[in-house]
Amino acid sequence: MEDLLEIGGKKIACRLFVGTGKYAGNAQMREALLAAEADVVTVALRRVDSGAKAENILDYIPPSCTVMINTSGARNAEEAIRIARLAKAAGAGNWIKIEVIADSKYLLPDNLETLKATETLVKEGFVVFPYMSPDLSMARRLADCGAAAVMPLGSPIGTNRGVRTRELVEILIREIQVPIIVDAGLGKPSDACLCMEMGCSAVMVNTAIAVSPNPVDLARAFSLAVKAGRLAYRSGMPERAVEARASSPLTGFLRETDDEKVRP
Amino acid sequence: MEDLLEIGGKKIACRLFVGTGKYAGNAQMREALLAAEADVVTVALRRVDSGAKAENILDYIPPSCTVMINTSGARNAEEAIRIARLAKAAGAGNWIKIEVIADSKYLLPDNLETLKATETLVKEGFVVFPYMSPDLSMARRLADCGAAAVMPLGSPIGTNRGVRTRELVEILIREIQVPIIVDAGLGKPSDACLCMEMGCSAVMVNTAIAVSPNPVDLARAFSLAVKAGRLAYRSGMPERAVEARASSPLTGFLRETDDEKVRP
Amino acid sequence: MEDLLEIGGKKIACRLFVGTGKYAGNAQMREALLAAEADVVTVALRRVDSGAKAENILDYIPPSCTVMINTSGARNAEEAIRIARLAKAAGAGNWIKIEVIADSKYLLPDNLETLKATETLVKEGFVVFPYMSPDLSMARRLADCGAAAVMPLGSPIGTNRGVRTRELVEILIREIQVPIIVDAGLGKPSDACLCMEMGCSAVMVNTAIAVSPNPVDLARAFSLAVKAGRLAYRSGMPERAVEARASSPLTGFLRETDDEKVRP
Amino acid sequence: MEDLLEIGGKKIACRLFVGTGKYAGNAQMREALLAAEADVVTVALRRVDSGAKAENILDYIPPSCTVMINTSGARNAEEAIRIARLAKAAGAGNWIKIEVIADSKYLLPDNLETLKATETLVKEGFVVFPYMSPDLSMARRLADCGAAAVMPLGSPIGTNRGVRTRELVEILIREIQVPIIVDAGLGKPSDACLCMEMGCSAVMVNTAIAVSPNPVDLARAFSLAVKAGRLAYRSGMPERAVEARASSPLTGFLRETDDEKVRP
Repeated sequence: MEDLLEIGGKKIACRLFVGTGKYAGNAQMREALLAAEADVVTVALRRVDSGAKAENILDYIPPSCTVMINTSGARNAEEAIRIARLAKAAGAGNWIKIEVIADSKYLLPDNLETLKATETLVKEGFVVFPYMSPDLSMARRLADCGAAAVMPLGSPIGTNRGVRTRELVEILIREIQVPIIVDAGLGKPSDACLCMEMGCSAVMVNTAIAVSPNPVDLARAFSLAVKAGRLAYRSGMPERAVEARASSPLTGFLRETDDEKVRP
Repeated sequence: MEDLLEIGGKKIACRLFVGTGKYAGNAQMREALLAAEADVVTVALRRVDSGAKAENILDYIPPSCTVMINTSGARNAEEAIRIARLAKAAGAGNWIKIEVIADSKYLLPDNLETLKATETLVKEGFVVFPYMSPDLSMARRLADCGAAAVMPLGSPIGTNRGVRTRELVEILIREIQVPIIVDAGLGKPSDACLCMEMGCSAVMVNTAIAVSPNPVDLARAFSLAVKAGRLAYRSGMPERAVEARASSPLTGFLRETDDEKVRP
Repeated sequence: MEDLLEIGGKKIACRLFVGTGKYAGNAQMREALLAAEADVVTVALRRVDSGAKAENILDYIPPSCTVMINTSGARNAEEAIRIARLAKAAGAGNWIKIEVIADSKYLLPDNLETLKATETLVKEGFVVFPYMSPDLSMARRLADCGAAAVMPLGSPIGTNRGVRTRELVEILIREIQVPIIVDAGLGKPSDACLCMEMGCSAVMVNTAIAVSPNPVDLARAFSLAVKAGRLAYRSGMPERAVEARASSPLTGFLRETDDEKVRP
Repeated sequence: MEDLLEIGGKKIACRLFVGTGKYAGNAQMREALLAAEADVVTVALRRVDSGAKAENILDYIPPSCTVMINTSGARNAEEAIRIARLAKAAGAGNWIKIEVIADSKYLLPDNLETLKATETLVKEGFVVFPYMSPDLSMARRLADCGAAAVMPLGSPIGTNRGVRTRELVEILIREIQVPIIVDAGLGKPSDACLCMEMGCSAVMVNTAIAVSPNPVDLARAFSLAVKAGRLAYRSGMPERAVEARASSPLTGFLRETDDEKVRP
């Protein structure tokens, strides 16, 4: 039984979404996409809309991939909407990843402007993937207004710090009905594996692969880790225990202790 | 270029070592070993030395696997040594995993008795894999006296709590020249992936797979995760950053702060 | 030199804000407030506005405390605003903690409705303390519209899970100019101590104290821990190191490794 | 009811043990000891046994303090024993902290040589405090042969990395009958507070205080944090929850999931 992700009207096998920024060159990027067996690839419109440029990045993306244009560079909803419309007009399809970033230091998303852009673009027929700071109330609004998925950050873009927002992301996984895709901050394959074990539907990775010493090998490693995590999530994992044998349950350190148990 | 682990005179492709306890049955165990593509499998001698028993567990282990007899049940060096000799006499080979456990609640190893058993068995020609509580001074003695690897615990046997001893295991990885194989406590594929990223040469997993809802699928997931982690370790991973862009480095929270920076 | 927190036009010595819910009784609550040496105390309006009730909770709050009415029970901005106005009319002052909660399972705040209520109440002259899900873009809006502080959650209300949102809270501390006060989820004095070391201006604790076996002693423990953390933040703490002596820096596990360094 | 630590035949009020190395000068050190309200202070014999030196460090230690000579510099049991005997002969008392360190990079203790020194010195009437790498089997031997306490490391000496060995230290706290005193690696007051909440009988801090920007203030902060943690341990703390209200318990992410629950 194949385990496909149904999203935006497509059925997707590879749950590792990959970005295209920061590679040493387009040829290397292409090799990495192939090594990842990527089905979904994000591209910033400014890198596509190249006009006279000799080289178009889209020529290096394998034809089997679905391109998701991102609105990188947008500082508010209006700019994001404009980028989305330009992308569609340029023939780049209607899958849009909304990135509205007003903070130049941490590149954190602006949830409120992201919501506005999502509302508008969904109505215009786009398949919208909003990148957001994990927050249940905003994720619910994004899902309610028709986002195809919700993409909370694990840690700030490009930091490779892993899933530092786990507490909040796990709540999204439990409460939001559209797919949850952790985007940003994953630095190691084990980070991606953990996200999938938690129940994310997919993860997105760019910097960690692109700036590593061997992007092609690391792309393959991330892809294997995502498969491992998804398979583990589906098969079920064992529970954790405190003792090796549960013959005499411990008094956990956070529980009430009586006088006899208080140590010297 | 193939990435083989040279250990005990063999070259091994699969860095996921697998145990054979706690499965619902031998057929299921065999399926899990195959799904893991395991090359090294541990078996407790008491489960082999079955004499008249109708079913011998060794018959269910794929012939491509190297069997490593463990001394489970031994409470001191003497008992471990006796088990090792019985195993060799019974034709179970000379790969011995030493488990000397005097603690019945956490099943923690006794490092001193483990060292004594290792010294003796190495001299008798065994390939010795001591299971230990991570400690640099004892790991160095184990390596110095000829252990084929050192197997520190991640957390107590059967708890599925992951690599809670990371601080100490990372030091072993840096300082000890024989392979470091984390054994015990790994509960999720991401735990195993992380160990390999840290630089472990292999990991051993038993409980997490055997008691899970779908041991065969989870064995496959662990195997993929180990490959992912090893590949990432070899290819190199990117560094972590604090900010998304390092344009203006932050004063980290642990650094000296001057008066102007002290917040209200 | 005394270290006072200037906030809402007052100067406050105790950076442990305390709630009044879930105590066994009003007398116990009063003892806990005294043990904490609390200067700021939150009370839900519904517990004040008791009309004919024999016992008024306000009678049990030491007169030296500033009462901050919270809008517990509000599901949107409108309800929060109404509660704030009722509180002022009832003579409960103009310090308002805004809690707008639409999620009944995790009791997570609704950032957007919280922002709306803050905008309105600031204009009406209230000193507004919004409880929020940590998110830089919304925290900036709250500060810009005049909130006296921003109160991000550490983990969901009443869970005692500690500062699970540390990654996001540390960014607020660095970027937002009004005081950051972690509210909700702190379960142990060490959690509160850590928040203060990170640079929070204060913390708020209710459940952990009120439902503990000895609320009075635990209130004192939290108060000491907050003082310890604040003092450490102001005095500065040492940096962390990887090795005991930095004579020969290690290759960290996340750094590039060359072939010679790759382990067996 | 006073909460005193009975140890080595004394009753001690302050559970923050303090070291004397790395200070800018003896006067500063003295101020820090007073700020910590320290009752137990460790001093390396080589710094005492100064002969013709103009200044003796012992002159700067408040007379109310018990001095615990440490065997810093010893590389094996024999050297540690010799230092202990010299200390006693020099009138420095019979409280000895055994530090046997063979590793020059991480300054990790040698558990086996530490055990040998402990056995000998206990027989000679010393009150022995062995510094060790946390390991249940060795801690049990140390306690069985008469150590006054067991002092596991939190992380390597001088790293300020906190309690990275928590998994193993918590087991010692549960299983070993003599006091457990975490020594080495604590970098922030919240680290010390957490150790006390876990049930440690005391903690030892040196580097974090001595190399900080304001040792005197940080000593006071550590002292408050230790009091907070101890008081919390004695009073009992609340349990942690996953949800804010336990109305409908979640399926934790590590539990078996059935088909309906598997997310897209």
